[in-house]
Amino acid sequence: MKNVKCLRCIKCGREYEAAPDATTCECGGILDVVYDYDYIRSVSSPESISASDNYTMWRYRPFLPVEEDTKQPPLRVGWSPLYEEPRMAEKLGIRKLYLKDDGLNPTASLKDRASSMGVAKAIEAGYDTISCSSTGNAASSLAGNAAAAGLKTYIFVPERAPIGKVAQLKIFGATVISVKGNYEETFELSKQAIDEYGWYNRNAAINCYLMEGKKTVALEIAEQLGWQAPDYVALSTGDGCTIAGVWKGFKDLYSAGFIDRLPKLISVQSVNTCPINIAARTGEPWQPMEENTIADSISVGVPRNPDKAINAIVESGGIPVEVTDDEILEAMRVTGRECGVFGEPAGVTGMAGLTKLCAEGKIPADASVAVIVSGNGLKDTANGIKAAGEPIRLEPDMDKFRKVFEELQAK
Amino acid sequence: MKNVKCLRCIKCGREYEAAPDATTCECGGILDVVYDYDYIRSVSSPESISASDNYTMWRYRPFLPVEEDTKQPPLRVGWSPLYEEPRMAEKLGIRKLYLKDDGLNPTASLKDRASSMGVAKAIEAGYDTISCSSTGNAASSLAGNAAAAGLKTYIFVPERAPIGKVAQLKIFGATVISVKGNYEETFELSKQAIDEYGWYNRNAAINCYLMEGKKTVALEIAEQLGWQAPDYVALSTGDGCTIAGVWKGFKDLYSAGFIDRLPKLISVQSVNTCPINIAARTGEPWQPMEENTIADSISVGVPRNPDKAINAIVESGGIPVEVTDDEILEAMRVTGRECGVFGEPAGVTGMAGLTKLCAEGKIPADASVAVIVSGNGLKDTANGIKAAGEPIRLEPDMDKFRKVFEELQAK
Repeated sequence: MKNVKCLRCIKCGREYEAAPDATTCECGGILDVVYDYDYIRSVSSPESISASDNYTMWRYRPFLPVEEDTKQPPLRVGWSPLYEEPRMAEKLGIRKLYLKDDGLNPTASLKDRASSMGVAKAIEAGYDTISCSSTGNAASSLAGNAAAAGLKTYIFVPERAPIGKVAQLKIFGATVISVKGNYEETFELSKQAIDEYGWYNRNAAINCYLMEGKKTVALEIAEQLGWQAPDYVALSTGDGCTIAGVWKGFKDLYSAGFIDRLPKLISVQSVNTCPINIAARTGEPWQPMEENTIADSISVGVPRNPDKAINAIVESGGIPVEVTDDEILEAMRVTGRECGVFGEPAGVTGMAGLTKLCAEGKIPADASVAVIVSGNGLKDTANGIKAAGEPIRLEPDMDKFRKVFEELQAK
Repeated sequence: MKNVKCLRCIKCGREYEAAPDATTCECGGILDVVYDYDYIRSVSSPESISASDNYTMWRYRPFLPVEEDTKQPPLRVGWSPLYEEPRMAEKLGIRKLYLKDDGLNPTASLKDRASSMGVAKAIEAGYDTISCSSTGNAASSLAGNAAAAGLKTYIFVPERAPIGKVAQLKIFGATVISVKGNYEETFELSKQAIDEYGWYNRNAAINCYLMEGKKTVALEIAEQLGWQAPDYVALSTGDGCTIAGVWKGFKDLYSAGFIDRLPKLISVQSVNTCPINIAARTGEPWQPMEENTIADSISVGVPRNPDKAINAIVESGGIPVEVTDDEILEAMRVTGRECGVFGEPAGVTGMAGLTKLCAEGKIPADASVAVIVSGNGLKDTANGIKAAGEPIRLEPDMDKFRKVFEELQAK
């Protein structure tokens, strides 16, 4: 990999060769992929990337840690739409609002970006089986991307994972272990099993390549805005890997000279489960919290990648903000009604946080903001109905409909 | 519209000016958009279209019945991936298999193509409210596309519509009437309400423009194969509008000289609900049937667009084939496991039919086949679980996992 210098521990600074199945540092710290930006600049430019006809995350190959002959996995991951939302921007009182609908990835979440990378690296390393634990989306995306590439998967999910995600896993042919416990216990069991059976490890906090897949969402936002960063990027934070990936993406582009300024990150967590945000706000070490939000994808009381995430928020001069479940449900309704985008609870949590900050006057009126919708609402239809209510049930009778219609008009 | 000559009744041949809110012929027949292929050829070519950087269905504007100044609706509809599936092709014993995953549209079904067109035409005609009846996908796609464009919707669904589709409707802010009756009764109620309140009519069998949106799936398949048709295109048939649209798309390209041969259409219906297939096979007029299949999107006993559909199957020299619910569930599993694509039951019914025909030796070994996956399995997770089974439930205990693993290995 000519574009990669090494893997470096974010805790102790020790450097490693970039083996495709590298895990954590021997000190326990998480590794980070270190790039040679001079090399990247010598082989690519904003213009050369924009001229690519590869409309997937793999158009950013100069910024991705894979060998030159590594094949792009089969599913079409990335290049999700970035919608401009002028009506919503006006309501929020900001200059520009963009919605990045990553629910339109093949298995309907941003996690496909990490899984596509994971599958590519597992094949590089010569594995035929991959495993992970996940609150749901990482798992279903791994199962789908691995199935398309002909790899086997063992997946560990906490029993609370919503039915949509479990159905995906099973359909994609994964061996699925629904763990009677919380995310932490699920993660620990998967870790033991992976160690014992020698599978490729697709846990984002252990496998440092996955974040490099996730960062492509940031590369796309920048390219879709004509190679510039918005003033703010708002997204939900759980384990911490996604916000860390977003920050890495913007920093990569900045380091290579492809963009000339960086955005501030708005990290949105649940008021009940927000260890990363509290640490970012107070500067104190993070503390475990209970897992208690309808936004299952970010219901992470013991985050696995807190250091990179906290650093991303602080280094960007960003804003940590917490929202209630009711605010998340309201964001589901508003994003659906105003933008035609149906996000899962964690998928619209970024929007909920931005809405709160705008109401509090914390976002300047001339700001441009990109909100990442990280997962599709079809994964969690029960909360969709909870947010938006039941339909009107009626006999097939025009007189009865007329009455209903008049009542609706009178409201 | 310089590319459109007129609307012509497929029953009596009477011609009409192409008004944006045209409905059916006064004889009751369905209208068809008639193009000026010389004009289309004079303003476009395969090369000019392939050079477009508009990666949506609207890249085919020379073939679409809209005014020059009509704005493309906001959601990113179309240009879904066409995956080549060599492993599945080998299993089926055919030369080439392609999977067109139309479940990756914004509201997760092919129907977004019709709804994007419907929204464009409603705005052309000056309406602010659109209505339709639907087994589910047409409805949710209309609600989403209309919401993004700032239009109101009234939607009529039969009470059996799966929760995923209902959740979408409600989230997109539609007024949803869940009709205590079958699809026929739902359709009739919507027709009366539309007539009485003067909404824009997005019922695909009444509004002839919608099929022109649907046909873009065929235009894409041809372009993605380098401007040629595969030998066969397999898809599920319900109301008949989609297969008629697919045929129109290939014929448009052929008439304009963009492709040099036409595919045969494989129309797949449920053994229990197959009025169009029986009519296509026997040459007799179609007869109403009961609605009885898990594939809710094609559970249509009284099809609303049978004539165009039957004509498409017969004229293409195509094959009508019927499958059982069990064969549909098996196709869900196989398409998920082998291709990493999760289709709803009707979404994989085309694959089920192709599988049956291949097993019966009815598809030549040197054939190339494109299968259209018309909707995402996340819309109907209950049937996903039915197809693929439940996960293994386990305490977070490595000893217990080891035992499970050994049992799995012994199988």
